[in-house]
Amino acid sequence: MKALQLHGKLGMEGVSVDGRPIPEPGNGEVLVRIRAASLNARDLGFIHGEYGWDLAQPLVLGSDAVGEIVRLGPGTSRFAVGERVSGIFFQEWISGEVTAESRASSLGGPLDGVISEYRVFPEQSLVAVPAYLSDAEAAALPCAAVTAWQAIVEEGQVKAGDTVVVQGTGGVAVFALQLAKLQGARVIVLSSCEDKLQRARELGADEGVNYREHPEWEREVLRLTGGRGADHVLDVGGADTLNRSVEALRQGGRISLVGLLSGGAVEGFRIVPAIQRRARLQAVSVGSRDMFEAMNRALEQHRLRPAIDRVYPLERYEEAFARLAAGEHVGKIVLEL
Amino acid sequence: MKALQLHGKLGMEGVSVDGRPIPEPGNGEVLVRIRAASLNARDLGFIHGEYGWDLAQPLVLGSDAVGEIVRLGPGTSRFAVGERVSGIFFQEWISGEVTAESRASSLGGPLDGVISEYRVFPEQSLVAVPAYLSDAEAAALPCAAVTAWQAIVEEGQVKAGDTVVVQGTGGVAVFALQLAKLQGARVIVLSSCEDKLQRARELGADEGVNYREHPEWEREVLRLTGGRGADHVLDVGGADTLNRSVEALRQGGRISLVGLLSGGAVEGFRIVPAIQRRARLQAVSVGSRDMFEAMNRALEQHRLRPAIDRVYPLERYEEAFARLAAGEHVGKIVLEL
Amino acid sequence: MKALQLHGKLGMEGVSVDGRPIPEPGNGEVLVRIRAASLNARDLGFIHGEYGWDLAQPLVLGSDAVGEIVRLGPGTSRFAVGERVSGIFFQEWISGEVTAESRASSLGGPLDGVISEYRVFPEQSLVAVPAYLSDAEAAALPCAAVTAWQAIVEEGQVKAGDTVVVQGTGGVAVFALQLAKLQGARVIVLSSCEDKLQRARELGADEGVNYREHPEWEREVLRLTGGRGADHVLDVGGADTLNRSVEALRQGGRISLVGLLSGGAVEGFRIVPAIQRRARLQAVSVGSRDMFEAMNRALEQHRLRPAIDRVYPLERYEEAFARLAAGEHVGKIVLEL
Amino acid sequence: MKALQLHGKLGMEGVSVDGRPIPEPGNGEVLVRIRAASLNARDLGFIHGEYGWDLAQPLVLGSDAVGEIVRLGPGTSRFAVGERVSGIFFQEWISGEVTAESRASSLGGPLDGVISEYRVFPEQSLVAVPAYLSDAEAAALPCAAVTAWQAIVEEGQVKAGDTVVVQGTGGVAVFALQLAKLQGARVIVLSSCEDKLQRARELGADEGVNYREHPEWEREVLRLTGGRGADHVLDVGGADTLNRSVEALRQGGRISLVGLLSGGAVEGFRIVPAIQRRARLQAVSVGSRDMFEAMNRALEQHRLRPAIDRVYPLERYEEAFARLAAGEHVGKIVLEL
Repeated sequence: MKALQLHGKLGMEGVSVDGRPIPEPGNGEVLVRIRAASLNARDLGFIHGEYGWDLAQPLVLGSDAVGEIVRLGPGTSRFAVGERVSGIFFQEWISGEVTAESRASSLGGPLDGVISEYRVFPEQSLVAVPAYLSDAEAAALPCAAVTAWQAIVEEGQVKAGDTVVVQGTGGVAVFALQLAKLQGARVIVLSSCEDKLQRARELGADEGVNYREHPEWEREVLRLTGGRGADHVLDVGGADTLNRSVEALRQGGRISLVGLLSGGAVEGFRIVPAIQRRARLQAVSVGSRDMFEAMNRALEQHRLRPAIDRVYPLERYEEAFARLAAGEHVGKIVLEL
Repeated sequence: MKALQLHGKLGMEGVSVDGRPIPEPGNGEVLVRIRAASLNARDLGFIHGEYGWDLAQPLVLGSDAVGEIVRLGPGTSRFAVGERVSGIFFQEWISGEVTAESRASSLGGPLDGVISEYRVFPEQSLVAVPAYLSDAEAAALPCAAVTAWQAIVEEGQVKAGDTVVVQGTGGVAVFALQLAKLQGARVIVLSSCEDKLQRARELGADEGVNYREHPEWEREVLRLTGGRGADHVLDVGGADTLNRSVEALRQGGRISLVGLLSGGAVEGFRIVPAIQRRARLQAVSVGSRDMFEAMNRALEQHRLRPAIDRVYPLERYEEAFARLAAGEHVGKIVLEL
Repeated sequence: MKALQLHGKLGMEGVSVDGRPIPEPGNGEVLVRIRAASLNARDLGFIHGEYGWDLAQPLVLGSDAVGEIVRLGPGTSRFAVGERVSGIFFQEWISGEVTAESRASSLGGPLDGVISEYRVFPEQSLVAVPAYLSDAEAAALPCAAVTAWQAIVEEGQVKAGDTVVVQGTGGVAVFALQLAKLQGARVIVLSSCEDKLQRARELGADEGVNYREHPEWEREVLRLTGGRGADHVLDVGGADTLNRSVEALRQGGRISLVGLLSGGAVEGFRIVPAIQRRARLQAVSVGSRDMFEAMNRALEQHRLRPAIDRVYPLERYEEAFARLAAGEHVGKIVLEL
Repeated sequence: MKALQLHGKLGMEGVSVDGRPIPEPGNGEVLVRIRAASLNARDLGFIHGEYGWDLAQPLVLGSDAVGEIVRLGPGTSRFAVGERVSGIFFQEWISGEVTAESRASSLGGPLDGVISEYRVFPEQSLVAVPAYLSDAEAAALPCAAVTAWQAIVEEGQVKAGDTVVVQGTGGVAVFALQLAKLQGARVIVLSSCEDKLQRARELGADEGVNYREHPEWEREVLRLTGGRGADHVLDVGGADTLNRSVEALRQGGRISLVGLLSGGAVEGFRIVPAIQRRARLQAVSVGSRDMFEAMNRALEQHRLRPAIDRVYPLERYEEAFARLAAGEHVGKIVLEL
């Protein structure tokens, strides 16, 4: 079978489509024929060595995929052959609070990822996929959508009439926009690009703020909320944006920090404005299987269509990663296998 | 000015439209010209002496109204003359948890109610009313809609993809249906009448269950949720329905108890099924000014139209109460002044 | 090995100490040499057929035990031979919300119980036991203490200065008293027996109310709280007590329903007093492995000593169950193996 | 009467004890004879112009005081003459969520403070003071203790067995230590001074870490928690400490940000470690009247003694402020009037 692997040599030249043997499902495991996988900024981070990874052997890339169950190992009961499933990002985070152990079980590093024609999963680490979704759409969910669900719904408890600010139009951001709309909120999207703001409006955004025009975008948020401030800000930018996110909040407002690759450090994070607003900052990354399943019920109920930017065949993975790196996309970039 | 008053003689014969002097706003108070008021089952309870009320002097009836500010007392600052406002049900429940004191400040008993041409309110006990609403629609909100908001949003934390069961099509029930839809939930409405189920579907209900056809309606809920059970049940019936509400729940599901006039006692409330589902029962009645204002933001955002059953002129109050007593209505019954 | 089994013939005559082969740990499992087990009202329920159980084959009784790991099956990593452990009550409720599936995994019915010299457990269904506890003390925890933890700490969020009412001096009640004290609360214990109230005071209760002297004990609670009412009531009685529990609450107060064997039905549960207090009723039974482990951290920190009523050798199980049935105990009754 | 006032000239030379007329209580107000006041870092901030304050007229300093009611204005009912009371810090934050309006009502700037022989308060802006406290102890509560209560109890929901890290031994820190102990937690105190660590242990701290010896104190926290990390960190240092606070957390742990005067900006706040721990940062300042009253119930129940560093007569205010500025204190510095 073919698998997209990262070798010791970091950078795109360390990536190649290789041949590997099809694995066998063990006790409690199932074999899945992968049909589509979506890319995340995190994949680029691995490729470019930003996680300080020390690769003793090739790593299969990718954490988001959908596929069909083709064989059941002994002692399994949750699924049947032919069911469409996705692996959960933290393979051992089933329910409740994440632990140090379950956090170490993420797909696409440290565990081998999902961009391969076949992959074995423990059956407990899979979720069923809503039938109305295409393969490309279903492949978009495991990281980005579940992260947005945790941020907006589980931690954010965003409710009807709330104002939610979403930074940008990347994968997590677009899902956050869509999920906040499902919860009845008013959504303000920030972007530096009018085309992307237009696309965000088509996806349901109530307002768009071009932060090139309005570098002090927090003032626009205050203006659009009659001076009250936003109930929730999804902060994906980290370093550049956190202080503005705080200033955009109402009293008691909340910020979800999801910027895994925001470059690490916020220079000059100001505490006093946070205290003056009784702000809460909640760091989130992805979520549990329970969250994934709750989100799927919401998606199914609303027939929500994930925003797919482009779909590439596996062989054109370099183009796909280039587009991701350029930040030109709105929604998710998908590889088909 | 005219006011609808209940005199010592209980029952509808104790009710009459009387003349009273227009009151003067004191320190921190404003005078409101009432335009419309909506009726609640609670009003009937007072009229028929169900609260064991001991009327030393006439009581102005009604707790839900909308009007226009016509005079400001000294030391006021929150409103201007001409603004449209509603009094909050518990006049002293502004924020946070209700107290014994704030609970004793309800309109229409023990405090004089709002069905009078003019009424003075402390300015802190009023909320501004969304401009898009008609007077009749705005008058529908203070009790029924705020109760539903507390049940579904504040305590229920109903989210997209949840299944909510709403009993009946009375005032609170219809708002609960509408607010649960704003939060992205799937709503199942119970009624004994196909016409009402049809009306509920028009208002957004996803499913209707006729409990005359299905007296064991909890089985229908389980069937409609694939055996999982509902996330939330709004229980307005109390005595007759609570055991079924419990049986309709998923593990960890919640019930909002809102049946103020459900007749008091549940014969044979079974504890074990509640424990088997880790059920939560939360009793709610109306809510704080903060909740009312949060709800108004949601209504405004969605231009939600309260369901108005019928509007009567003040003088035809007997017809209005008769319709309420007969339970024929869907949504709120309103008097215009 | 010896095991205490219930045979098709219900009642104590259906119970006997039988010989069974020592089981082998399979994949992901460990073998535990049981040292002590504690009894629960639930065991009596099974013996007397109160759960409508249909026994096709003998059922090993008991859900609470402590033992030592004596053999590791293949693919295990959480424990070493020699570690002292307890099985969790719902063997599959690890974290987060219970599910219909995990609820069906309880020890001592439907799954075979723990009163046997050896038992195999999946390693994920065990918790480590604090070293400072005796075997008898450790055996007291799995059902009663975890139920009290969920009621008082996880759901109750009891805090310093709160007033907690605990009904009786059975297993769950005494743990609830002790855990509420750890959380800094003031505890009022109800009993019909002065000796038990004295024992409760020794265990930390601030007040004791003899409900034989004060059948309207809710009035005593109101008196002792200056009319404010209790923040939390642990209701174990169910049918007889729930209405009084509601009347004893402050505005916004909470009741934990833990009365698994309270006899089923509350005759005449009154809804209106619950609504008048914005009461919350939360049904709880036992808890997850996460809760058990959090509780163990609390016990270890405080060197809390579980209240052990009496310890019997396995062979005198009939005496032990007779004492449990008579309700003479304060704290837990233990069998040693 | 005498009042400690700050004049346009900032710095200690702008502070003097001046004569002012005794004010009269208006409608809903009471007159209080102040007996003792405690100092806060915030007072120094005002004196040194750190809030960018523009003083048109003298400002009475101080936000924390206790006194006796000596006269009731018309329309009051909550208190009697002779009762001992404290003003709440945000005079209009009674309950629920703070608002922009209630936040603007803080004592000692922008509103006149409490270090004066008499002061008028709206009766709704006062709390009764537990009888067991001395005047100096009671004066210590309004800012520091209520801030700690919000951080540890209301937002932190610290429970028995949790590990709480408290930075330093200032006013808020010592209350946080004491309140975390009431909630049953294990407390680790950080200080650069062995004497202060010793004093913290006397006040209940389980562990002390000297961060001069262990500049990477987060490693000590991890060591002391067996690698698990702390459940809660009270961060008062802000700029210097926030990154370490994050690294000291368990998965899902929480940080309370209370460092009002920490100097503004955290240089290089790292987002990734926060995301890796699912950290929550909650900014808190003081709290509502409801929180103050809940805390008082806890103090009264436990006869908790606030840590008083030193008591000075009003005239020696310069010494008192110098000691505060030097950071030599453990607990609160008090002025007697």
